[in-house]
Amino acid sequence: MDSRLYVITGHAFSKGRGLEEVISAALRGGADCIQLREKDFSGRELLEAGHLLRRLTREAGARLIINDRIDVARAVDADGVHLGQDDLPIEVAREMLGPGKIVGISTHNVEEALAAERAGADYIGLGPMKPTKTKLDTEPVVGPSGVLAVRQAVQVPIVAIGGITAADTAEIIRNGANAVAVISAVVGATDVEAAAREIRGIVDRERGNRA
Amino acid sequence: MDSRLYVITGHAFSKGRGLEEVISAALRGGADCIQLREKDFSGRELLEAGHLLRRLTREAGARLIINDRIDVARAVDADGVHLGQDDLPIEVAREMLGPGKIVGISTHNVEEALAAERAGADYIGLGPMKPTKTKLDTEPVVGPSGVLAVRQAVQVPIVAIGGITAADTAEIIRNGANAVAVISAVVGATDVEAAAREIRGIVDRERGNRA
Ligand code: NI
Repeated sequence: MDSRLYVITGHAFSKGRGLEEVISAALRGGADCIQLREKDFSGRELLEAGHLLRRLTREAGARLIINDRIDVARAVDADGVHLGQDDLPIEVAREMLGPGKIVGISTHNVEEALAAERAGADYIGLGPMKPTKTKLDTEPVVGPSGVLAVRQAVQVPIVAIGGITAADTAEIIRNGANAVAVISAVVGATDVEAAAREIRGIVDRERGNRA
Repeated sequence: MDSRLYVITGHAFSKGRGLEEVISAALRGGADCIQLREKDFSGRELLEAGHLLRRLTREAGARLIINDRIDVARAVDADGVHLGQDDLPIEVAREMLGPGKIVGISTHNVEEALAAERAGADYIGLGPMKPTKTKLDTEPVVGPSGVLAVRQAVQVPIVAIGGITAADTAEIIRNGANAVAVISAVVGATDVEAAAREIRGIVDRERGNRA
């Protein structure tokens, strides 16, 4: 799971713009992984959005990850699922999705990161980096220093998440994150494509600098 | 899908009693199909409840159906899923659960019943029979007369649902429903086992009377 800019959908933060418009712009700007995460969507709405995102990500050569719903991930042939600590466990996702699919897990500290790695996660979400507007996570803030601590503890790719903006990205990547995940910094930007391009550029630069 | 008394879980209506206590009593009273439906449960909580219900229903020789979540149904080896009109479509459930599993669909009128039958549903939920306390369904009331109309239109088994009590059961079965589904009339009863036994007895009697 070698993504660099991981964009999570959030229609509530998209300033009334449609999913296709917003995510197409994010992909043009360099998002290489899209997570469908709409907690108030019905199964039917998730399926429709998932099919749309599957088409857009395929065209862009990007990955598609579905939050929580393994059944939806399978139905739209997503590249994988992202599971929270309270969602179905990783073994269930593996069995249901079959080989070659990505399973990521939200973590909030070294202990959860180690457990996720042991359970065979393909990547871990780690956050929140800052208090977030999107209430993605109500756990205590991990922050960029937490990335450093988790990087020293695990080998699994780290996708930092939670309140990240372009201004935070360099430090987070320098501290050992492989990627940053964003919602409002990209889907809530006036110019979505430019916002994605800026953050992606910082990740590329900092990862290039990493020996 | 030849069930007679279909009991849907609802921890909010169970008077503070635990799932095991309530459902064990319902099974003793003659429930032959249990549906796990807890809209505010996390995936992990659904999995735990599903495993518990799988054990109880196996011991009782009853069926277990999971509401909405095909992934949870598969994870606990349930007998099937129950899908609403806004949930994932029947073909997705069939593909993901494999052969021999039950797929039921909520319907509210002749048109939806016909569509569900054409799509290959193993049974249809039909309701609401009355306005319900449990807000299971906010559609217009179908009522016992609606059962008659749908029975004349489709062959697929009909599970009537929505506000049903012992007092309504005979008419509903006489009008052609194969089973009644209840939440509060059983899980909210002071004596759950007795409440289940009473309704099951009425279904058995009326189905015996049906030529
Ligand atoms: Ni979290």
